[in-house]
Amino acid sequence: MGKISTSAFSVSIDGFGAALNQSLDNPFGEGGMALPGWMLKTRMFHAMRGQEGGSTGVDDGFASRSMENIGAWIMGRNMFGPIRGPWPDDSWKGWWGENPPYHAPTFILTHHPRDPIVMEGGTTFHFVTDGFHAALERARDAAGDLDIKIGGGVSTVRQYLRAGLIDELHLAFSPVMLGRGETMFEGLDLPELGYRLIETAPTELATHVVIGR
Amino acid sequence: MGKISTSAFSVSIDGFGAALNQSLDNPFGEGGMALPGWMLKTRMFHAMRGQEGGSTGVDDGFASRSMENIGAWIMGRNMFGPIRGPWPDDSWKGWWGENPPYHAPTFILTHHPRDPIVMEGGTTFHFVTDGFHAALERARDAAGDLDIKIGGGVSTVRQYLRAGLIDELHLAFSPVMLGRGETMFEGLDLPELGYRLIETAPTELATHVVIGR
Repeated sequence: MGKISTSAFSVSIDGFGAALNQSLDNPFGEGGMALPGWMLKTRMFHAMRGQEGGSTGVDDGFASRSMENIGAWIMGRNMFGPIRGPWPDDSWKGWWGENPPYHAPTFILTHHPRDPIVMEGGTTFHFVTDGFHAALERARDAAGDLDIKIGGGVSTVRQYLRAGLIDELHLAFSPVMLGRGETMFEGLDLPELGYRLIETAPTELATHVVIGR
Repeated sequence: MGKISTSAFSVSIDGFGAALNQSLDNPFGEGGMALPGWMLKTRMFHAMRGQEGGSTGVDDGFASRSMENIGAWIMGRNMFGPIRGPWPDDSWKGWWGENPPYHAPTFILTHHPRDPIVMEGGTTFHFVTDGFHAALERARDAAGDLDIKIGGGVSTVRQYLRAGLIDELHLAFSPVMLGRGETMFEGLDLPELGYRLIETAPTELATHVVIGR
């Protein structure tokens, strides 16, 4: 059985995983686009966009590993898009265009049912309305022996951490101070939940931290 | 007029500046002694204890600068000692022995009056019972053209930050996860208060972050 992990998840130095006021123009909230700055420079990210070049050091190592061996994704509805409430129509298919970077069945936690969307490149978006445990079961069935990635956002990751269901969490602390936003740690006692710090790796663009059980 | 700063202030990756349950054996709370781990290895800290050796890189640079040009210190009562409530007697003179590392007038915020204590090496502990603004005025008079250092702990630093009275804040994020403790950032919107990130410098032992106005 594959492991369940969250990887390449960027956090501000003051502990926010997303800024406030997410919108079509600001997928990470207002001012939040600086959070994944370290990743945008990696060779992995360049390759994902069909571009040459990019950094090949520690940042790229973490970015590349974050996309390996994945059999299924789980994400919160706000990571899928800026729409809140019932789906107005079927036009929104995620931020990523016709060929999303997931290339695997992707289970989206939502209160609002919707038919699956088959995208190019192996990604199918499934909408799960019966809770995060149900989403994990479906992801397990879909992933087989491969790993399950909890993609985000903050509240989804926290929900799985609180239930002790994430085996490994890789955070990248970016040199960004947000002041407000979606808090990663507030009220979440990871040592109490059985988690411990496994590895830290600082680079010029981020301090990578790996937390596990 | 000198600047007002807090320097070499260690924070866990999950944002705590101290662990809980401070006591005589645990000045940083239970499990908190790992917080200043980066500093204990520096040449500055070795020299402060009259020892040879210690690291001479970025960590030592930050540690050394944190002790330069200081005309007065301000600290909270819990940084001075583990005693709570009225002083039982005059026996407690801080954690540091007869020659504390401050070498300047040091103003301690407390609700409980006490006569000043003249220590060796230029440190005199003054006990200020009329608030943090009054302490700053007295520190300014004492410091002359030199700088004022707000030494800690967490709640004292936050109090001065919230009032916009700290010019520069140097935090060192240590590879430690506490889960609970005294939160550095919760409910404190530094950008809103006019602060911004000035510098980050990662090392193997800490990620140094300088915040200013």
